Amino acid sequence: MEIGVGLLGTRFMGKAHSHAYRSMTTFMGLKVKPRLVAIYGRDPEYTRYVKEAYGYEKYYLDWRELLKDPEVEVVDNSLPNFLHKKPCIEALEMGKSVICEKPLARSLDEALEMLKAAVKAGVTHGVIFNKRWFPAVQLAKKLIEEGALGKILHFRFAYHQDWGADPELSLTWRFKRETAGYGVLGDQGSHVIDMIRFLIGDIDEVIALSSIDVAERKLEDKMEKVDVEDSVAVLMKLRNRAFGVMEASRYSLGRKNYFVFEIYGEEGSLYFNMERLNELWFYKRESEGFTRIFVTEKTHPFYEKFWPAGHTIGWVESFILQLYHFLLAVKKGEEFRPNFYDGAVVNAVMDAVYESIKERKWVKVKKTVV
Amino acid sequence: MEIGVGLLGTRFMGKAHSHAYRSMTTFMGLKVKPRLVAIYGRDPEYTRYVKEAYGYEKYYLDWRELLKDPEVEVVDNSLPNFLHKKPCIEALEMGKSVICEKPLARSLDEALEMLKAAVKAGVTHGVIFNKRWFPAVQLAKKLIEEGALGKILHFRFAYHQDWGADPELSLTWRFKRETAGYGVLGDQGSHVIDMIRFLIGDIDEVIALSSIDVAERKLEDKMEKVDVEDSVAVLMKLRNRAFGVMEASRYSLGRKNYFVFEIYGEEGSLYFNMERLNELWFYKRESEGFTRIFVTEKTHPFYEKFWPAGHTIGWVESFILQLYHFLLAVKKGEEFRPNFYDGAVVNAVMDAVYESIKERKWVKVKKTVV
Amino acid sequence: MEIGVGLLGTRFMGKAHSHAYRSMTTFMGLKVKPRLVAIYGRDPEYTRYVKEAYGYEKYYLDWRELLKDPEVEVVDNSLPNFLHKKPCIEALEMGKSVICEKPLARSLDEALEMLKAAVKAGVTHGVIFNKRWFPAVQLAKKLIEEGALGKILHFRFAYHQDWGADPELSLTWRFKRETAGYGVLGDQGSHVIDMIRFLIGDIDEVIALSSIDVAERKLEDKMEKVDVEDSVAVLMKLRNRAFGVMEASRYSLGRKNYFVFEIYGEEGSLYFNMERLNELWFYKRESEGFTRIFVTEKTHPFYEKFWPAGHTIGWVESFILQLYHFLLAVKKGEEFRPNFYDGAVVNAVMDAVYESIKERKWVKVKKTVV
Amino acid sequence: MEIGVGLLGTRFMGKAHSHAYRSMTTFMGLKVKPRLVAIYGRDPEYTRYVKEAYGYEKYYLDWRELLKDPEVEVVDNSLPNFLHKKPCIEALEMGKSVICEKPLARSLDEALEMLKAAVKAGVTHGVIFNKRWFPAVQLAKKLIEEGALGKILHFRFAYHQDWGADPELSLTWRFKRETAGYGVLGDQGSHVIDMIRFLIGDIDEVIALSSIDVAERKLEDKMEKVDVEDSVAVLMKLRNRAFGVMEASRYSLGRKNYFVFEIYGEEGSLYFNMERLNELWFYKRESEGFTRIFVTEKTHPFYEKFWPAGHTIGWVESFILQLYHFLLAVKKGEEFRPNFYDGAVVNAVMDAVYESIKERKWVKVKKTVV
Repeated sequence: MEIGVGLLGTRFMGKAHSHAYRSMTTFMGLKVKPRLVAIYGRDPEYTRYVKEAYGYEKYYLDWRELLKDPEVEVVDNSLPNFLHKKPCIEALEMGKSVICEKPLARSLDEALEMLKAAVKAGVTHGVIFNKRWFPAVQLAKKLIEEGALGKILHFRFAYHQDWGADPELSLTWRFKRETAGYGVLGDQGSHVIDMIRFLIGDIDEVIALSSIDVAERKLEDKMEKVDVEDSVAVLMKLRNRAFGVMEASRYSLGRKNYFVFEIYGEEGSLYFNMERLNELWFYKRESEGFTRIFVTEKTHPFYEKFWPAGHTIGWVESFILQLYHFLLAVKKGEEFRPNFYDGAVVNAVMDAVYESIKERKWVKVKKTVV
Repeated sequence: MEIGVGLLGTRFMGKAHSHAYRSMTTFMGLKVKPRLVAIYGRDPEYTRYVKEAYGYEKYYLDWRELLKDPEVEVVDNSLPNFLHKKPCIEALEMGKSVICEKPLARSLDEALEMLKAAVKAGVTHGVIFNKRWFPAVQLAKKLIEEGALGKILHFRFAYHQDWGADPELSLTWRFKRETAGYGVLGDQGSHVIDMIRFLIGDIDEVIALSSIDVAERKLEDKMEKVDVEDSVAVLMKLRNRAFGVMEASRYSLGRKNYFVFEIYGEEGSLYFNMERLNELWFYKRESEGFTRIFVTEKTHPFYEKFWPAGHTIGWVESFILQLYHFLLAVKKGEEFRPNFYDGAVVNAVMDAVYESIKERKWVKVKKTVV
Repeated sequence: MEIGVGLLGTRFMGKAHSHAYRSMTTFMGLKVKPRLVAIYGRDPEYTRYVKEAYGYEKYYLDWRELLKDPEVEVVDNSLPNFLHKKPCIEALEMGKSVICEKPLARSLDEALEMLKAAVKAGVTHGVIFNKRWFPAVQLAKKLIEEGALGKILHFRFAYHQDWGADPELSLTWRFKRETAGYGVLGDQGSHVIDMIRFLIGDIDEVIALSSIDVAERKLEDKMEKVDVEDSVAVLMKLRNRAFGVMEASRYSLGRKNYFVFEIYGEEGSLYFNMERLNELWFYKRESEGFTRIFVTEKTHPFYEKFWPAGHTIGWVESFILQLYHFLLAVKKGEEFRPNFYDGAVVNAVMDAVYESIKERKWVKVKKTVV
Repeated sequence: MEIGVGLLGTRFMGKAHSHAYRSMTTFMGLKVKPRLVAIYGRDPEYTRYVKEAYGYEKYYLDWRELLKDPEVEVVDNSLPNFLHKKPCIEALEMGKSVICEKPLARSLDEALEMLKAAVKAGVTHGVIFNKRWFPAVQLAKKLIEEGALGKILHFRFAYHQDWGADPELSLTWRFKRETAGYGVLGDQGSHVIDMIRFLIGDIDEVIALSSIDVAERKLEDKMEKVDVEDSVAVLMKLRNRAFGVMEASRYSLGRKNYFVFEIYGEEGSLYFNMERLNELWFYKRESEGFTRIFVTEKTHPFYEKFWPAGHTIGWVESFILQLYHFLLAVKKGEEFRPNFYDGAVVNAVMDAVYESIKERKWVKVKKTVV
């Protein structure tokens, strides 16, 4: 059975998602078969090009046209944050299934509007937190669920990159609260927050510090103020009483995609570094040392879909896995997780982080209810 | 311009090549566009399935039918070693471009027959040595060519896996000289030999030891002798006087895909480990230590075709790069390297290794002339 | 010139200090020559043994006797925390130079009493923060002072061990506030706090969380409550506006002596892990990747005192360096750093951490004034 | 009981041995107690200095004087290779126990003379192969002996340094066959050969290549030819049929003390790198990956002599362990291993390596018989 996909966005995420749809059956088989119906972009020439290169049947220069296309059953929103709400809500109102890039929204309020629309539409909805789908992360999840770590005591999660250290970088939408909602907290931190929830549990309260490390950036020919953070550090307590720290920065020189976690439980520990994403380090009480699990065996989560042992995958395969499971849920008419609810919870945490910085105090994460 | 591709083989390599053709334009753009015309396999049901899953237009259960299909312009031979010669030569005789999996042949003699046919056909031909195309290996090549290492003095190359350590594994074609030509020397060692030539230079003479580590394996319901080596170690001297060691084994427990090299030159050194294939370690005289180059920046070879800095690729992307450059050469009617000549040179080295083991003496690698 | 040393303590730290005194001239030469006058311990038999094994001339079973020994010029206090104040103050009052193990005291108040006595005595005083003296840490300090990192923006420091995870461990002095002053915060965290000050600057305000992970431990034949934390996490801001996180735990399974830091500055970054203490990882803007500096060359801080390049040192050599510099200061009648002032500042930070946990709010670190 | 030690040599090895004697009882207790009787050096001023700094009672400027000193019971020969034979034989003839730095001799013939003298003297004799005594190596030995690896199949041993890459280094005794016997083969390779024997078994036959990488070096004011190799690679077969490669070089830029091994057996594998000498990597069939054993627990060989878990030792502690066990054997009047026999076997292997290079063929290692 084919499912018609319409993709909003042609750049970094547009490319990653397109690759996933196009090579999905190669790896995942024929239970669901995405049909690459249409892609939307703003730039006519480039959009025409990617339509061809990424293998879509049509392209649109107006996202509403794409939404209206009756062959589009699923709308994949890979646009910048300020273009999440409207297209998602309109697509939902048309009864289409929607999957949206993270962070779901620029604020909890915006997220709740979207969640409301999703619930009302009664369709399958999802948020891209592709990092959940690394086989090493899935194995971490499995180990934790099986109790291999016992009760989690404390942790460190961090996500460092360094592209923000370039002072010549112009002021794109990512540097303004109006368009992005958050700085590095939304870009990178949202992944971290979702991963903490996924692996350990819900965050109860937070307190944080942040900084803008490059105060102004060029917009066309003049300098303009950056008004969202480049770096943030958060101390947090979960509902299950585990506690820990989280850092995120786009000004951590030398770190290109340093998404790492250390999780310490009563019976064992885990370490992961996305720059070496085929590895999970595991220590079990009484073992002789940390074991470097090279997560590429057919016994490892999803790995038999890919290659024989030792043949590594990269970052992009996580999208194949997430989008496959999303389409499978769409086909079956089932709920998918992480969905708009999970996306909204991440917004709730991020808003609490912001409030804790402003108020200089502990802030409880709001319950996400619609 | 589209190029019609016919693929022989549906399993491990068939899947890797199919993925490469299918996602080629996503990464490499539209200069060449493979058309997935047909796939050949022996098993009707499975071949029908992969035709669909990998995205081919047709499938054949007889490879000669595929060769004859007029829409097939390029034949990609991903069959077992004993099925390299015939399909390749027949395709060449039909004037089709051919790319063949490594090792090219089961002996230098067989390779020379194939090379003769390729030269006579006057078409573009190639051999899959996909590891040349890892961005980290390309960077190593660039550094060496720019003289960053000075004259190469000595080296260690190794390729260890451990699937052969499983005594329950039945006796497939890989365990017989008749069908495979070589043991681990052909399977893994051929990659190493090609890489030594690619990065450092031609091998002049060799001496070696080898062992069969699991003497018998099950074939249907009885045990049969394995007659090719599981492990081999070679001491070698290159024409440029650099010397070094090479090891290959499929019985190195815990090593899943441990293709590593250390290259020491008069001015610098390099270290690479395919289990972490996005990294190249480089030391330059006077520097403070080895630098871990995370080969994922747009300044790195081919990397801007993929993703922003830090977003790793896996093993399979090397096929996209190699097959893209092959198709580009086909389109332009140009020579491609590595081709049947390079494949034959690897056979010449492997035959010399075998002779050195048998004769217990140094053996010169034969010149490859047709 | 010989300096007569009297050591209080025979166990872990007593052994480390004794080794340092005994092998000091082997490495550091003859500018100062410690004379191992006397050692104090409680257990007669064991103390007699270590007197011989560690090479002391005499032993005492009463620390006051050791203090009074006219040949003891320097008192080295390696006793448990609850035995820091009295022996130090009495020794100071006798005009002897004193060096004391960390943490200096069980509270800021206690530390200030000690600092007052030290200032009044007018002698050289010091606190053991031996980790400052790892060549890799000294190199980090040098790089930061030379501006190689530019302004420091943010950081992570952590110190994880796992001996506290053993539930069979009986309730020693380290598990009671009365005797230890702090839990892991004093044991391990004091090292971290001192290192942050040493490398980056003074801490301005803190907020923290902590937990007791093993609630009760055996004391003789009954279970008794542990009343100090096993784990702590702190968010902090420095006076120079850098901010970051610090974690310390003795219940981080698999971490044996995982003292790590990541420091991110405007122009470069550093990474250090004490489990591999001869290495410092350094990234400078525009460099190709992190360089693993193997800090064992004669160009590296203090390394020519030890061995030729590549011959690693261990944890204990840091005591040789610290105690040598302390004795040198004693000999010259100069101030030594870190001294009781620095020790007291660490107590001030630790007390602020405790208050922030209790009050659930940001707490300013008190100025250390006597 | 004290044992009077006389040390020949004041430089690198003299310092390492002196430190070992001086701090021996601190770690090893009082079963044997070395008395640092006398040290011999050529340079009067420097020897006087080290006598004081290293803690000897006397010094001599003539090694024969030291030998004759009746308080010297054990002679430790840390002189250059060309000064091994005479002092060792004379000391043995005087009935003194002797321990000598590696390589024992400049040739098998010379070694056999020394071995004969040792056997005739009937005293305890030893050769310094300190690397045997790293706790991680001892653990490797234990695992192999317990059968954790099963039958050893193949291996790689290497020892790379880079000090030879400095063209300004003048022509010391290490660069002439007359004074050193061998080049890097003797300096570094002898350690490797001994380790292969220690861990796996006796070497049966070898074939090798070598190179002189810096042809001439300054001797006083003129250039002189180097006549021993800077780099060597050996292919070898053991008597137990395991086979493998060994490399040694002093011109491997960036490698400071890169003594590494990989050992592959039927049931498990080991990896060790001396630059991180507190770690042993172990893989056992069916385990999830290589485990990094941090060899610093009291369950690890000898580690309880040192520190609590995680407090690393350095390179020099291996001398404490070896010399302690040597003195213990002296005290008990027992045989010590590795002794002159083991030293001579290493010479036999090195001579076979040389012959195999000259004759360009496989060479059997001569049996070491006196």
